[in-house]
Amino acid sequence: MPTYRLDIAYDGTGFAGWQIQPGQRTVQEELEKALSVLVREKVRLTGAGRTDAGVHAQGQVASFQTQTAIANEQRTLHALNCILDLDVSVRALARASDGFNARFSARFREYAYTIILSKSPLQRDLEWHLRYRVDWDLVASLVPMFMGSHDFSAFCASGSESRDRRCEVLFFSLETTEVRKVFHIRANRFLYRMVRSIVGTLVDIGRGELPRENLAEALKTGDRRLVGDTAPAKGLTLVEVGY
Amino acid sequence: MPTYRLDIAYDGTGFAGWQIQPGQRTVQEELEKALSVLVREKVRLTGAGRTDAGVHAQGQVASFQTQTAIANEQRTLHALNCILDLDVSVRALARASDGFNARFSARFREYAYTIILSKSPLQRDLEWHLRYRVDWDLVASLVPMFMGSHDFSAFCASGSESRDRRCEVLFFSLETTEVRKVFHIRANRFLYRMVRSIVGTLVDIGRGELPRENLAEALKTGDRRLVGDTAPAKGLTLVEVGY
Repeated sequence: MPTYRLDIAYDGTGFAGWQIQPGQRTVQEELEKALSVLVREKVRLTGAGRTDAGVHAQGQVASFQTQTAIANEQRTLHALNCILDLDVSVRALARASDGFNARFSARFREYAYTIILSKSPLQRDLEWHLRYRVDWDLVASLVPMFMGSHDFSAFCASGSESRDRRCEVLFFSLETTEVRKVFHIRANRFLYRMVRSIVGTLVDIGRGELPRENLAEALKTGDRRLVGDTAPAKGLTLVEVGY
Repeated sequence: MPTYRLDIAYDGTGFAGWQIQPGQRTVQEELEKALSVLVREKVRLTGAGRTDAGVHAQGQVASFQTQTAIANEQRTLHALNCILDLDVSVRALARASDGFNARFSARFREYAYTIILSKSPLQRDLEWHLRYRVDWDLVASLVPMFMGSHDFSAFCASGSESRDRRCEVLFFSLETTEVRKVFHIRANRFLYRMVRSIVGTLVDIGRGELPRENLAEALKTGDRRLVGDTAPAKGLTLVEVGY
């Protein structure tokens, strides 16, 4: 069966997340409804990252199969964007190789988490406005500890489906200006609310609310009681999925 | 009387513009109300640029006078931002020299107008999503025509208060990437909806909807019938006011 890949961007503010939930507005459902009209059969989408309510995406990827090939992909893409609301956009629609699965074929996901230290009217739904004093040098010095393969159980919110809690962090950086702090994190996989739990823990340590020793201990023991608060959804964006 | 300067940013989406209008939510009124509580007297603000409904600001400047000096400016600034909604932020509050007037002391205003060629969910209230094919090389070649001192009557919407229609354009550029086109324009003053009228006219010429000869003619004669549509408010941001 023909397989297709979609590249998707959305503002998560108005969505109850990626994944279909009855009675809620979700990205997956909006896309499936629009696609089903255009390809004239019921479409089931598989997304690479199941972003939570309020989390944004610039580079979400999804895949689906159809009974018959799409005749004109460019025209279908254009129609799709006309049907969809302004807060979600399909950037590309292309035939993929047989067996391509947006979720299981992915080698890595990359997220960005943005913190702003002053009020930011024009980006207020895309950034976490932090009102605390934080030792950013201390935070930056802790970032490398997450690199490599670890059991991230301590940074996984309850409600996760996965039993295997091992993830490999391929890249983790903190880009910093006077008023804006952006974390970039790339891993082979992420657990439920993992990025937000990592960011919240780093901020709590930077504020002096949590001893810095907790970090190594949390990575070693997987004990969730050692970590800090979960950072708000709105600062998080799924930037890229790699295949 | 002590004079103060405010530096202000706002998302214009939820405002009926800068200037107070009865029964409408305006930036000026929100600020005056918050300030009046803090300085315990009725404050009247003068803004440098009277931005229209839906127009944003990163560098708006306003001034006001008080009977008695503000004891702690930093604390007042902090309280001001707590009182104000999330879509408006005061970036600085400082004592100004006597006689400073945000409007009349200004030497220039600078605006940015952003056009996006593909759907942009995360910036959709800050950019004009243009769905037409436009010859951007042609548009770029016309930009220098606006430089210098001209009678901008043709680019002034009805409803303007000013009788003198001469403005001096100090800087006008078009910054261009594949999907995003940003106009930067700086002038000693601007007429009512002038930037939006200039941008709309350039786009109409670039689309082939308007002969390019109209531009020189409009600048010479001031005839508003020669120019194109007014571009939407949401693409426009007041970036800086110079003193």
